[in-house]
Amino acid sequence: MVGGIRAVERCDALKRPPYSQGADMLFRPYLSAAHDATIAQLTAWMSEAGMTVRLDSAGNVVGRYEGAGDKSLIIASHIDSVRDGGAYDGPLGVMLGIEVVAALNAQNIRLPFAIEIYAFGDEEGSRFPASMLCSRAVCGQIDASVLDVADRDDVTLSAALESFGLSRDTFLTARRDPSELIGYLEAHIEQGPVLEAEGLALGVVTSIACQKRFEVTVTGVAGHAGTNSMTLRKDALAAAAEMILAIEAVAQAGPEDLVATVGRMAVGPNAPNVVPGEVVFTIDVRAGTEAPRDQAADAILQRIQQIAAKRETPASTRLIHDLPAAPCDPSMMDKLSRAVTSMTGKAARPIVSGAGHDAMAFAGITPTAMLFIRCKDGISHNPREAVDPVDVDLAFRAMLAFVQDLGTTDE
Amino acid sequence: MVGGIRAVERCDALKRPPYSQGADMLFRPYLSAAHDATIAQLTAWMSEAGMTVRLDSAGNVVGRYEGAGDKSLIIASHIDSVRDGGAYDGPLGVMLGIEVVAALNAQNIRLPFAIEIYAFGDEEGSRFPASMLCSRAVCGQIDASVLDVADRDDVTLSAALESFGLSRDTFLTARRDPSELIGYLEAHIEQGPVLEAEGLALGVVTSIACQKRFEVTVTGVAGHAGTNSMTLRKDALAAAAEMILAIEAVAQAGPEDLVATVGRMAVGPNAPNVVPGEVVFTIDVRAGTEAPRDQAADAILQRIQQIAAKRETPASTRLIHDLPAAPCDPSMMDKLSRAVTSMTGKAARPIVSGAGHDAMAFAGITPTAMLFIRCKDGISHNPREAVDPVDVDLAFRAMLAFVQDLGTTDE
Repeated sequence: MVGGIRAVERCDALKRPPYSQGADMLFRPYLSAAHDATIAQLTAWMSEAGMTVRLDSAGNVVGRYEGAGDKSLIIASHIDSVRDGGAYDGPLGVMLGIEVVAALNAQNIRLPFAIEIYAFGDEEGSRFPASMLCSRAVCGQIDASVLDVADRDDVTLSAALESFGLSRDTFLTARRDPSELIGYLEAHIEQGPVLEAEGLALGVVTSIACQKRFEVTVTGVAGHAGTNSMTLRKDALAAAAEMILAIEAVAQAGPEDLVATVGRMAVGPNAPNVVPGEVVFTIDVRAGTEAPRDQAADAILQRIQQIAAKRETPASTRLIHDLPAAPCDPSMMDKLSRAVTSMTGKAARPIVSGAGHDAMAFAGITPTAMLFIRCKDGISHNPREAVDPVDVDLAFRAMLAFVQDLGTTDE
Repeated sequence: MVGGIRAVERCDALKRPPYSQGADMLFRPYLSAAHDATIAQLTAWMSEAGMTVRLDSAGNVVGRYEGAGDKSLIIASHIDSVRDGGAYDGPLGVMLGIEVVAALNAQNIRLPFAIEIYAFGDEEGSRFPASMLCSRAVCGQIDASVLDVADRDDVTLSAALESFGLSRDTFLTARRDPSELIGYLEAHIEQGPVLEAEGLALGVVTSIACQKRFEVTVTGVAGHAGTNSMTLRKDALAAAAEMILAIEAVAQAGPEDLVATVGRMAVGPNAPNVVPGEVVFTIDVRAGTEAPRDQAADAILQRIQQIAAKRETPASTRLIHDLPAAPCDPSMMDKLSRAVTSMTGKAARPIVSGAGHDAMAFAGITPTAMLFIRCKDGISHNPREAVDPVDVDLAFRAMLAFVQDLGTTDE
């Protein structure tokens, strides 16, 4: 049993102790005993697939399969998980990379470039309040100040590295020189419902979405629910409700990759018999490129002020995040799409990734491609996360075709 | 200085220790030292106004001004306050009753009935998790089980009565025989913005609103804010927002005294980057009579189910309160309206009380009338609660005219 089927089985095997910190749930935080056990298992699997294996200074397992030239294609994803997470978010991309190398090795195929499989120790922010620590270290997008972040038990990243046999002094030397790389490929479950809704196994990511996040405070007048007539009340929650529907309408009217979400809301004073006097909520706006995102954000802020003025419930808005898009490389996307089509018989579905991935860091230093695999009901960060092994095997074969195509055209 | 001006001054005097439990804010809970000090002061003021004064077995101060007959008109309100409350919610009605008697006594006027001023110790639920304890005891609408309710410090009503020099065994004997009464009059600040908006000092209450309260649970599908496209998400908060606007629209389309409020809301999981999977909120519906309230509640529940079906976000609804209306007595209302018109030169504004009052209890046992006094910005249960002494003096004169009219027509 090899290929996608084995990749899924290996993810499942890593769900339980010693590879998980929880006995009844998957939790694999960065630099934990569960991480250490997983490193040992991955080292064995990578060696068996024909790679030389090392642990880099950021705690990433790196397996290298030599090619004719010195430059490398990185195939990677992360092996940490959120608390009570799913088995495939991250590890599946690593296992697929191992399967690609195993298949090449079994046929004694050497490409014009080396393949390096990275299993990043942290992407989720699984232990420290910072995410993508490992891919950002490899891409040189992080500085020494990060060593002082502390986990819930006040253990700093520095201290955790030392306990793990690594060192704060060398952490940043995990950085790779971009001139050593020819590109980056990551396979990941979609974590959304689009491919499933369209009956497609695979999608080719065009970009990792840019994001703006706002906090909105709506100020009404709190008052007795019985004594304030409908015409005289200034209800902050009714105003917020109208704003939420306006936000939804703006996003629905925009391009398919535009999403806007009100995810958090607090109502004050929040009593059944009091007309709400204040509502605070967040807006998260994402799109594949900045222009439609900014156009939507502007339209949303304008509608909010119109509704606030009409209802005499002033609204203040504050930008709390502004992350640029990470576009994938057009040539890499073309090759990956061709490989997908050759395996599925269907045109590859271009898709914007609304979620962040390690590929975001690499998009800044090397041509990047990303393959999405359909997951059940779009569910992720949840033990009910599920994939169809048949889909994963299609992904495996597409990735294998992609690297061989890359070898041919780069010769 | 007498009449409405003095009534306001006396309320202001009771804002501070020893009449308040807080040094910097008004808080006068039932059966507290602040309550005790207030009883002593009221006893002095009532005696000075020509009344014989007693403390009844529920801790109410009762001043009686004899008339030609044995039956009594009760003029009453409460002297407890919410924490950090206002000076007029309750005490103003008691002070106005004292002024009415003082004015009659100064002119040696005796009516065909006695006047009894009740200063109820609890209306707000200021100490125990039960409201209108004292007026319900006087009206015989409470049973011995209430003696076991406990305050935040686990002191039962029984124990608090004993500490106060009262007794659990006699608490319910505060009950009055309805055949001893000719009626009940209560003056109270409006606690709403209607009179102020219409430029009126006084209003005559037609009914204390009936109320229905529901809890609604909307179930969507929680998901990543970035990966769930607008067309595929089932956002429980967007659904709730549409329901809130529908609730508002139903109430706005109904009669003037109909109000509907969504005052409390909880969003799950309540994270900026997660599409809400569950929202729980309350609906409070009130009107002067049951029919429009029930019609509105039915329309609201129907709209909620329509929206839930359309959005595929199931909604379950649960009735958590159902309180009947307490209508005022038509003949008493007419007399009070006449008295108001004679003092203000304007037709009396009929108004439904959306808030509960001690008059609710009395409406079940004797003809009841209630006078509303304009308050600033409709604010109550707040230190910013304010009244214009000129309005209060109009109320005093209307009440004096009302009791004299009642004496004439009842002779």
